[in-house]
Amino acid sequence: MAGGGVFIAFEGGEGAGKSTQVQRLHGWLTEQGIAARTTREPGATGIGGTLRSIVLDPANTQLSPRTEALLYAADRAQHVHEVLSPALAAGEVVVTDRYVDSSLAYQGAGRTLEPAEVRSISRWATEGLTPDLTVLLDLPPETGLARARGRAAADRLEGESVGFHQRVRATFLQLAGAEPARYLVLDATGSPDDLADAVRVRVAELLAGRP
Amino acid sequence: MAGGGVFIAFEGGEGAGKSTQVQRLHGWLTEQGIAARTTREPGATGIGGTLRSIVLDPANTQLSPRTEALLYAADRAQHVHEVLSPALAAGEVVVTDRYVDSSLAYQGAGRTLEPAEVRSISRWATEGLTPDLTVLLDLPPETGLARARGRAAADRLEGESVGFHQRVRATFLQLAGAEPARYLVLDATGSPDDLADAVRVRVAELLAGRP
Repeated sequence: MAGGGVFIAFEGGEGAGKSTQVQRLHGWLTEQGIAARTTREPGATGIGGTLRSIVLDPANTQLSPRTEALLYAADRAQHVHEVLSPALAAGEVVVTDRYVDSSLAYQGAGRTLEPAEVRSISRWATEGLTPDLTVLLDLPPETGLARARGRAAADRLEGESVGFHQRVRATFLQLAGAEPARYLVLDATGSPDDLADAVRVRVAELLAGRP
Repeated sequence: MAGGGVFIAFEGGEGAGKSTQVQRLHGWLTEQGIAARTTREPGATGIGGTLRSIVLDPANTQLSPRTEALLYAADRAQHVHEVLSPALAAGEVVVTDRYVDSSLAYQGAGRTLEPAEVRSISRWATEGLTPDLTVLLDLPPETGLARARGRAAADRLEGESVGFHQRVRATFLQLAGAEPARYLVLDATGSPDDLADAVRVRVAELLAGRP
């Protein structure tokens, strides 16, 4: 409960339904009269928007894995500085679509960089700010990619192989397994209504424990 | 002598004459029939050019110190990947205007981040690539800033206080003092001709030791 607020992250592969569930949770919190906001990575700040356009541009084939990991970390540092820390200090419930785990999964496991090094850079970028709850929407990559492709043009990440996305999924599950108390892992093949219900139950418990 | 090439960095505060001396050295190397190229940080690559425009834009007052340090590291990772490593592998003499020391001096000492942490991120970004020789053009900040202001509009760094630039200078001198064999420290109040002569003498020694 950093600074009086509550920090909730949604993580998962492409097409897992993160943005839908972020919006559903935000709608419910607002109905309850709770001060809440949604945000995302990358690209929640003005500077982050520029960085997002670099990392997601399919034309940037020259981008090295280390450059990519550092750009995500820079986006995250600015997100913490400009959005997350002030909102949490003001006592809000902040719901983000992706956070540190996405870097560990995509840049660490996916891009064959040392996960411990990627984690150490992310921890420095965020000054250690960790979600109170991370909701992992878990899905077989084949299912998620088919959904994502039906929705929009493939960006750089969606153009990667199925093997890449399987390593990403395995890393998310491993992170959740290492800290079960701080994670809610949901089977994202379930209906959006069932998923939203499960998220609400867990967030209600979290809010009940708030001072 | 990474990969057969020779890697030379010029460092120093604003207005120390780095770009003049980089050009003079390059001209001399070319006259000698040596394959040489000049480069710089930030902004030597396409992606780096975008990052340079973010970090040097005076309008970006919201930029956090950690974001700034990570953006310089991202620029450097891409510089190593796209320019420095390939040129050194091809046996060239590569002369860069600024490298890791500038981050340690400006982001570390200047911005009150932990220098050891900034160094560790830079080392990860460069995969440990270190210059064979670093030429430090040392100058009192008052002199350098007066020169820089006469030349162009003040960018973000030039708008900092004299105290900031004094901390930057002290860090450069400290880095040189810790590894005297790898540094050539020159008093940059000297004439451009005298400075260029001193650089040539040292670089000729370095090249004589080449296999």
